Amino acid sequence: MATATGPFGSLGLVETRRVVLFTEDDPLVLDSGERLAPVEVAYETYGTLDAAGGNAVFVCHALTGDAHAAGHHGDPARPGWWDTLIGPGKPVDTDRFFVISPNLLGGCQGTTGPGSLEPGTGRPYGLRFPLFTVADLVRVHRRLARHLGVNRLAAAIGGSLGGMQVLQWALDHPDDLHAGLLICASARLTAQNIAFSAVAREAIMRDEHFHGGDYYETGERPEVGLTIARMMAHITYLSEESMREKFGRRIQDASAPRFRFGVDFEVESYLQHQGESFLQRFDANSYLYLTRVMDYFDPFRDLPAALVRLQAVRTSFLVVSFDTDWRFDTKHSLDLVRVLQTAGVRVTFREIASPYGHDSFLLEVPEYHRTVAAFLARVAEEAGVAP
Amino acid sequence: MATATGPFGSLGLVETRRVVLFTEDDPLVLDSGERLAPVEVAYETYGTLDAAGGNAVFVCHALTGDAHAAGHHGDPARPGWWDTLIGPGKPVDTDRFFVISPNLLGGCQGTTGPGSLEPGTGRPYGLRFPLFTVADLVRVHRRLARHLGVNRLAAAIGGSLGGMQVLQWALDHPDDLHAGLLICASARLTAQNIAFSAVAREAIMRDEHFHGGDYYETGERPEVGLTIARMMAHITYLSEESMREKFGRRIQDASAPRFRFGVDFEVESYLQHQGESFLQRFDANSYLYLTRVMDYFDPFRDLPAALVRLQAVRTSFLVVSFDTDWRFDTKHSLDLVRVLQTAGVRVTFREIASPYGHDSFLLEVPEYHRTVAAFLARVAEEAGVAP
Repeated sequence: MATATGPFGSLGLVETRRVVLFTEDDPLVLDSGERLAPVEVAYETYGTLDAAGGNAVFVCHALTGDAHAAGHHGDPARPGWWDTLIGPGKPVDTDRFFVISPNLLGGCQGTTGPGSLEPGTGRPYGLRFPLFTVADLVRVHRRLARHLGVNRLAAAIGGSLGGMQVLQWALDHPDDLHAGLLICASARLTAQNIAFSAVAREAIMRDEHFHGGDYYETGERPEVGLTIARMMAHITYLSEESMREKFGRRIQDASAPRFRFGVDFEVESYLQHQGESFLQRFDANSYLYLTRVMDYFDPFRDLPAALVRLQAVRTSFLVVSFDTDWRFDTKHSLDLVRVLQTAGVRVTFREIASPYGHDSFLLEVPEYHRTVAAFLARVAEEAGVAP
Repeated sequence: MATATGPFGSLGLVETRRVVLFTEDDPLVLDSGERLAPVEVAYETYGTLDAAGGNAVFVCHALTGDAHAAGHHGDPARPGWWDTLIGPGKPVDTDRFFVISPNLLGGCQGTTGPGSLEPGTGRPYGLRFPLFTVADLVRVHRRLARHLGVNRLAAAIGGSLGGMQVLQWALDHPDDLHAGLLICASARLTAQNIAFSAVAREAIMRDEHFHGGDYYETGERPEVGLTIARMMAHITYLSEESMREKFGRRIQDASAPRFRFGVDFEVESYLQHQGESFLQRFDANSYLYLTRVMDYFDPFRDLPAALVRLQAVRTSFLVVSFDTDWRFDTKHSLDLVRVLQTAGVRVTFREIASPYGHDSFLLEVPEYHRTVAAFLARVAEEAGVAP
């Protein structure tokens, strides 16, 4: 693990709240034209909104994240997933910024998703939940920001799928974001990226307990499929280097191989734990929807049109990649930086050296944290956020 | 696909034969001390053994290969898996060499494996089949060579797991091989390599139809698990570059995305086809055994002892890696080359530029084929094989 960047304070106890943002009278109109209501959103906030409503930073989570980004829910030893980045004196400084962190549409941690009850039938949606896009995620984010009294954000920040949301937000609403931070993100998945997600989905959908997505009332869940999906994905989150350091060829609880099919190497034990503990906190249908939304994301597909739209974008970007990330490697970041620069959008790009692969964005990598802190300090100054 | 290296002839119709090599009176004694009998081996031969018995080349297949390496079984359009490499005038020239190609112990294409009947019970072994090592595979290979009248081989050649067998053979029997060709092989899997195989095995063993390996008589097979295992493995056989070229983000049979969970991108269709067609030819238990044998392979673990043993090795090696192979990248080859060179063993190493990733060893990559041809021509000369 990287060293701590300083003796900063903690947010302490925080809580997740919920709010209904779209109702039958005022439904969420999706890119597909479908209407979805009600849409309830689970979210957390940290820090205080200033009088001008101009110091808000919006956190967009990645594939398996949730609203609980920072602070803790009672056990200080189990903080939120981005607690190293967000808090008093931390790179996303809650002494200065008002931070908003929701669970995504389609998720399974409090926000309306495929496990929610479908009005009319009173049964969980399952695969009847409409397919949505990254732009639809942004529609919900905007409504939440408005609900909290924020019309323009000092910044939006996200890693991986989170970065996709930030990019889409700036494209669709060029005046909304003063700044956007895209951490190990991508504007377009490669065939290999799609392939990994496709196999994960097949593992879930071919599971005998999937029942076409209607497993909620059967007492069974596609646990094998979801476990396998998570184990496989986890390989792509770590670098080969970090796996070598972390596990090498070491044998679990023994000095010599036992020659068996069960867990023998430490890396096997680690993956099993990752796969099985994931079952406690994630829903298979949400995994399907949120991986599929990434596959289809391709905002620069019609490049001439995108360049025209980008002319209006006033957002200033920080794009960060990690040199050992092979899920979304630096080329993904460079490709999107090139498009932004071609359109004359302000971009700062940093490739950070870190041994931890894609997972680096969740870890306390000092150069990464310094880069985010410096960028946000400049943003605060430009946006007139009081120190 | 790479261009053809020349208008060479074909072997035409070939056949797979079978021979019982170990019996209850003369069982195969495994590294573990367990005894296995009977052991029947399916094999093919191409070309003619010369009077001195000195022109034999032994082919060691990889994880999912079989005895049918070259020629065809009736349909010239469906040749053996290494038909581009083996045949009259080809790099492994059957006008000059007598080629032996068996199915591996533990396999499912004619050689005794977990799907074979266990003497005594009369039921398929399943997981009661003993765990074996690469050295055990070599024990069976040697017996087959002797059976065919060959005491010393001009060469043994193998890709991936096949190369592991060649390396082990030279280590265990330093006078057996005049030459050894290790194509995209490894002397030691990394944690990431093991991780991919571990997830594949979990997919199989957690399949409801696995029944602890005793699925043969249930009328069911762990088809979902084996399909997922194959789909995932296939991602690691292709380079990101070749996936980009082959599929990119193209949509299957359509010009625009259909926004659905079923197959939409071409790469999804390809992987599904690979996974499902694999079911026709492979047994899940064999997949478990043959991936596990690779995990445990580590002949240089005790390096000082290995260096001492290597002093006696008279084999001359060709080690080939491919620059876009990320399953067993060039570092795997370089690591083993370094050990061989430290021990004073003769080694020629070539990293070949090829866009096709690990799969390159199965494909007609001109520089690769030229390298193998030139090396084997020198071997033939040194070993006194008539032109």
